[in-house]
Amino acid sequence: MSINSFGRLFSVSTWGESHGPALGAMVDGCPPNVPLDAAMIQHWLDRRKPGQNKFTTQRQEADQVEILSGVYEGLTTGTPIQLLIRNTDQRSKDYSGIAEKFRPGHADITYWQKYGIRDPRGGGRSSARETAARVAAGGVARQALKMLVPELRITGAMVQMGPHRIDRNNWDRDQIEANPFWAPDAKAAAMWEGYLDGLRKSGNSIGAVVEVMAEGMPAGLGAPVYAKLDVDLAAAMMSINAVKAVEIGAGMMAAELTGEENADEIFMTEAGPVYSSNHAGGILGGISTGQDVICRFAVKPTSSILKPRRTITKAGEEVEIVTKGRHDPCVGIRAVPVGEAMMACTLLDHVLLHRGQVGENQGRIG
Amino acid sequence: MSINSFGRLFSVSTWGESHGPALGAMVDGCPPNVPLDAAMIQHWLDRRKPGQNKFTTQRQEADQVEILSGVYEGLTTGTPIQLLIRNTDQRSKDYSGIAEKFRPGHADITYWQKYGIRDPRGGGRSSARETAARVAAGGVARQALKMLVPELRITGAMVQMGPHRIDRNNWDRDQIEANPFWAPDAKAAAMWEGYLDGLRKSGNSIGAVVEVMAEGMPAGLGAPVYAKLDVDLAAAMMSINAVKAVEIGAGMMAAELTGEENADEIFMTEAGPVYSSNHAGGILGGISTGQDVICRFAVKPTSSILKPRRTITKAGEEVEIVTKGRHDPCVGIRAVPVGEAMMACTLLDHVLLHRGQVGENQGRIG
Amino acid sequence: MSINSFGRLFSVSTWGESHGPALGAMVDGCPPNVPLDAAMIQHWLDRRKPGQNKFTTQRQEADQVEILSGVYEGLTTGTPIQLLIRNTDQRSKDYSGIAEKFRPGHADITYWQKYGIRDPRGGGRSSARETAARVAAGGVARQALKMLVPELRITGAMVQMGPHRIDRNNWDRDQIEANPFWAPDAKAAAMWEGYLDGLRKSGNSIGAVVEVMAEGMPAGLGAPVYAKLDVDLAAAMMSINAVKAVEIGAGMMAAELTGEENADEIFMTEAGPVYSSNHAGGILGGISTGQDVICRFAVKPTSSILKPRRTITKAGEEVEIVTKGRHDPCVGIRAVPVGEAMMACTLLDHVLLHRGQVGENQGRIG
Amino acid sequence: MSINSFGRLFSVSTWGESHGPALGAMVDGCPPNVPLDAAMIQHWLDRRKPGQNKFTTQRQEADQVEILSGVYEGLTTGTPIQLLIRNTDQRSKDYSGIAEKFRPGHADITYWQKYGIRDPRGGGRSSARETAARVAAGGVARQALKMLVPELRITGAMVQMGPHRIDRNNWDRDQIEANPFWAPDAKAAAMWEGYLDGLRKSGNSIGAVVEVMAEGMPAGLGAPVYAKLDVDLAAAMMSINAVKAVEIGAGMMAAELTGEENADEIFMTEAGPVYSSNHAGGILGGISTGQDVICRFAVKPTSSILKPRRTITKAGEEVEIVTKGRHDPCVGIRAVPVGEAMMACTLLDHVLLHRGQVGENQGRIG
Repeated sequence: MSINSFGRLFSVSTWGESHGPALGAMVDGCPPNVPLDAAMIQHWLDRRKPGQNKFTTQRQEADQVEILSGVYEGLTTGTPIQLLIRNTDQRSKDYSGIAEKFRPGHADITYWQKYGIRDPRGGGRSSARETAARVAAGGVARQALKMLVPELRITGAMVQMGPHRIDRNNWDRDQIEANPFWAPDAKAAAMWEGYLDGLRKSGNSIGAVVEVMAEGMPAGLGAPVYAKLDVDLAAAMMSINAVKAVEIGAGMMAAELTGEENADEIFMTEAGPVYSSNHAGGILGGISTGQDVICRFAVKPTSSILKPRRTITKAGEEVEIVTKGRHDPCVGIRAVPVGEAMMACTLLDHVLLHRGQVGENQGRIG
Repeated sequence: MSINSFGRLFSVSTWGESHGPALGAMVDGCPPNVPLDAAMIQHWLDRRKPGQNKFTTQRQEADQVEILSGVYEGLTTGTPIQLLIRNTDQRSKDYSGIAEKFRPGHADITYWQKYGIRDPRGGGRSSARETAARVAAGGVARQALKMLVPELRITGAMVQMGPHRIDRNNWDRDQIEANPFWAPDAKAAAMWEGYLDGLRKSGNSIGAVVEVMAEGMPAGLGAPVYAKLDVDLAAAMMSINAVKAVEIGAGMMAAELTGEENADEIFMTEAGPVYSSNHAGGILGGISTGQDVICRFAVKPTSSILKPRRTITKAGEEVEIVTKGRHDPCVGIRAVPVGEAMMACTLLDHVLLHRGQVGENQGRIG
Repeated sequence: MSINSFGRLFSVSTWGESHGPALGAMVDGCPPNVPLDAAMIQHWLDRRKPGQNKFTTQRQEADQVEILSGVYEGLTTGTPIQLLIRNTDQRSKDYSGIAEKFRPGHADITYWQKYGIRDPRGGGRSSARETAARVAAGGVARQALKMLVPELRITGAMVQMGPHRIDRNNWDRDQIEANPFWAPDAKAAAMWEGYLDGLRKSGNSIGAVVEVMAEGMPAGLGAPVYAKLDVDLAAAMMSINAVKAVEIGAGMMAAELTGEENADEIFMTEAGPVYSSNHAGGILGGISTGQDVICRFAVKPTSSILKPRRTITKAGEEVEIVTKGRHDPCVGIRAVPVGEAMMACTLLDHVLLHRGQVGENQGRIG
Repeated sequence: MSINSFGRLFSVSTWGESHGPALGAMVDGCPPNVPLDAAMIQHWLDRRKPGQNKFTTQRQEADQVEILSGVYEGLTTGTPIQLLIRNTDQRSKDYSGIAEKFRPGHADITYWQKYGIRDPRGGGRSSARETAARVAAGGVARQALKMLVPELRITGAMVQMGPHRIDRNNWDRDQIEANPFWAPDAKAAAMWEGYLDGLRKSGNSIGAVVEVMAEGMPAGLGAPVYAKLDVDLAAAMMSINAVKAVEIGAGMMAAELTGEENADEIFMTEAGPVYSSNHAGGILGGISTGQDVICRFAVKPTSSILKPRRTITKAGEEVEIVTKGRHDPCVGIRAVPVGEAMMACTLLDHVLLHRGQVGENQGRIG
């Protein structure tokens, strides 16, 4: 049981620090005979890559993935797949000033308190660079899902930046890839651009809400009581750096609904059950209904900012800190591909778990 | 690896259905020599027990816990502790009408689709009765925590019913036990009473938000990257029946904060670091800071309501359903002691994990 | 992760002490719709039950199993199955004299050293009574295997008592149930009877070797590198009380074979590959070949004997100890049904694991 | 849960194939502030390295380990340690002839049957090269043990080659490093040299027995019932390639002992309990006594031999096979450092587990 792993049958273990020689993911339990090469994974890494516009860190990382094991002649063999990404643009000097100071809102202080040692270069293990390994693992999961559940489609989008939410009436899937924010609402994206530019120039940062959706879901994924699909999704999303909340379906709003409003009514079609609404976010009792799975998470603003903040040093001295370096004004942007990757890994894991225990769905309706 | 378990070192596995002969929890990995008897656990079960007022299900369950193993002469032995609670007030006839119909918003349909079999009596395994086993396990965890972290104090409260939030200026810990809602705000509790009575009489139900707080926290609990304390709390809370969202600290609101606002500033005192605020909810980088851990979760309204809803049968026929029986108009009320229990189990688990890997905190400040 | 559990998908967690009110097993991950009732499990418990002849402990335990959860109308539901066995013949007075003394060769001293507390009544958790829970769990596994791999047949036998081995030329499956030793060799059984009677009368005890065989095996069960089928079998058998060694196929004798001798040659038939011999014990590279799986384990003699031995007390005094009570002169006898149960659980677990990752065997030969 | 991992708190996950670009181990859960650099690990790898004399494969692998993460300025940080070893001497052409034929006694056929794909180059994942990753992980474990249990000493030795056992009266620890077989008996080593040379020249191979001993053991490591120390050792050793049996203490011979003979008598000294003998192999009830832990395992002969054997092809044709290439005439030799590494990892894991649940031993004697 590694504390740097997740997944029950499809298992992902990540390793590596921001400024070490490399980082990566070991993916285990992948079905055999899944077509896989580095380019298929690179596709997803390129979407997450920093430095692509002024709204993400200007660190320039090639993020080239190498497959070191588990693939033979373009097919997975069922053995562990080791994915390696070299760090190529580490500028440790950027961080030298903060080795003794703890950034407020950052893991600096807790790593130190717990372990009595921390790698201060770029945040070490707590850096958002770790999420590159997740995106690479998600690329493997997507290939396996393509084989096992071909109709499944996973889509992430940013639905809120600071106080500014998208207008859901404007939802246009095609917009998501058309702006630097993965926003499905072109008007919101335009507004955010100016807003974020202002924050960036003032050396500040801002939070965001990301939504990840899985369409074409099979019913029956998940399990009572602690291996619920929503439990594993909540854990997967909460494990992403800077995430402070996770919602399924109606989420926090479920608190404001009556039972009458919340109960998605069920109707029957030739293709199976359909629902009048989706407050459940596609999951009832921890098991997928076949509706779209809807998961949202809040990403806090980057704590590495140019605004001066009060803090302390290892020696216990009270000081002021200003974090220079190449940081994201809205780290939520890069969290979109990460959320998609976590959704892909979690769903594949439950596809395999379900097949293991049940084989195929046993309850026919109609 | 049981799919009905949680916890890494302090492990809880629950079993049992609403209308079977009994349900319970196996608690494993508890430290030895912890004082424990049934009365210590019963104390917590009695807080959760239904039928205590008109705002919870009128099912009358004694919920008497028996300790079947793992305790000798009033002390834990380090071996598994089996906790058994008999079901004594099962009225299966109440549910006979719904064996063929799927309640909208309920696990009926997904259990059926997945397994092709379900125990329809009282919801079977998906019943909120399962949470009695969690509360019992939480009682064990609290006894161990009392020994290992005596200053720790875990408190749950209801902070929102439907659209009605408490006024945080009115927060009074002593009020929590003084009203049927675990509300820390006497005025809110009074308002909720009339509001919920109206809903109950109309055969409807309503959602709620529960907050669980841990004061007197040690720093250093948690671990990168997937064994983060907030990850395990998110999973623990999301696993509770009807929970649709989990927040840590600022939660969803973190999306609206700037980096400047969100970064809790750090100051030094004789007793160690103190913070200007607690947007982090006591957790940075997945590891506890020593501040209060703040966790909130949204509970959806009970789906078993008297209001008629459209649904389908196993045979695929479209029908109307009205769920008679003894249901909670606001199941969030009973979720308060459950949230506390999950917090206790999760914190104890991380106390043991931390001791295992690190021994004691190694990073001194000042 | 419970330390009193085994199994990856089909998970068994046992609990309970020799002289507590009850003991049992929680079986999780069982496929749904498996026919199961208490009588199907009782059948296997009755085979293991002590007190059936003078060669096993005279403790009279009904060992009646109750199914508390996970079964509805005679079928498993996919939820946890709690099996409970009450202790009815605890005579704690038998053990009162040894609460302060440590029996040589027994867990008394190590439980004390580790935990600083132990339940001395009947050995507490270290009692062989714990194996009743395994046999009950094995009964569940057998029902699921009957559905999933109907041709599978698991057979345990005692093949050596003290220095006396069976003659493999005399192997007769029908003899196994015809003598009190589960011996497949009638002549050996007859010889053992007098031998063991002599040991029993002298207050001594003796070790044994048990062999468990699985015929009708599917190929492809197991996985590299640490989830090998032989790894899980070795762990399963070594976890049985008093077991000191586990062998697969040729076992320790493999050390004496040349590569030429050891390599089971392969031939082709209409039904698939067949082998000239089975030194591999049906497992190559951790994965089943389809040949019979052969596993043997050595059971040490009971340490609770009437022969006086030197030992120490908790206070560190050197004393002599004589263990009165109702003990097995050859505890290996009762280990036969236990070994079968562990084989059944382990094989079912790997059937589910294989189905989860691979679905069905993908490599066709011929 | 990775199926290519072992360990509960100190977790090792290995990956990589014989002829891929690299292989390695991810070591997680290591305590922080343990001194570690590549040279400390290299020391152990060099002991295992093939090609050092005519009795091991002539493959020339540098087996240079790189530490990619988890270490900062010469100390472990508590985060995952990724160890990478490049493959530099892959001669795939050596194996081209056997891609279609299954070597008898080898994993070729089972990987194919299970997965429908296998990497035939050097055995792929089933190659003994995987054990280099274990030895590297063992090097990390040894560094942590040096800090936590400084008096602990782990020693492996070959005690039997084919039918030829060492004379235990000749046991001389200093001999172990003085001959190519890790034999503690100089006379046996001399005899084996000629014996093995004969086998090698005839294109044959032979099995062996390896013994691994841990001296300076703390009492109290292990746990009932399925996390027993001997269970985890049995699993660890059985997971090594070609191992067919594992013994603890008296092992298979325990079957031939009476209770009187087997019960190691206990006496008291100033330093604590001492024992008249060690049939238990240092473990009672799954928990260490403080005596030396003694573990032995049988290694079957290499199946890759020059002797012709009958086998089949993927197409189901019966053929003869002769395996050319660079193979070990006695793969048991290289298993000695591997067994030591598995012992180190398993003991460290239990040191951490014990500290997690119990803190420190609670039961004082005397």
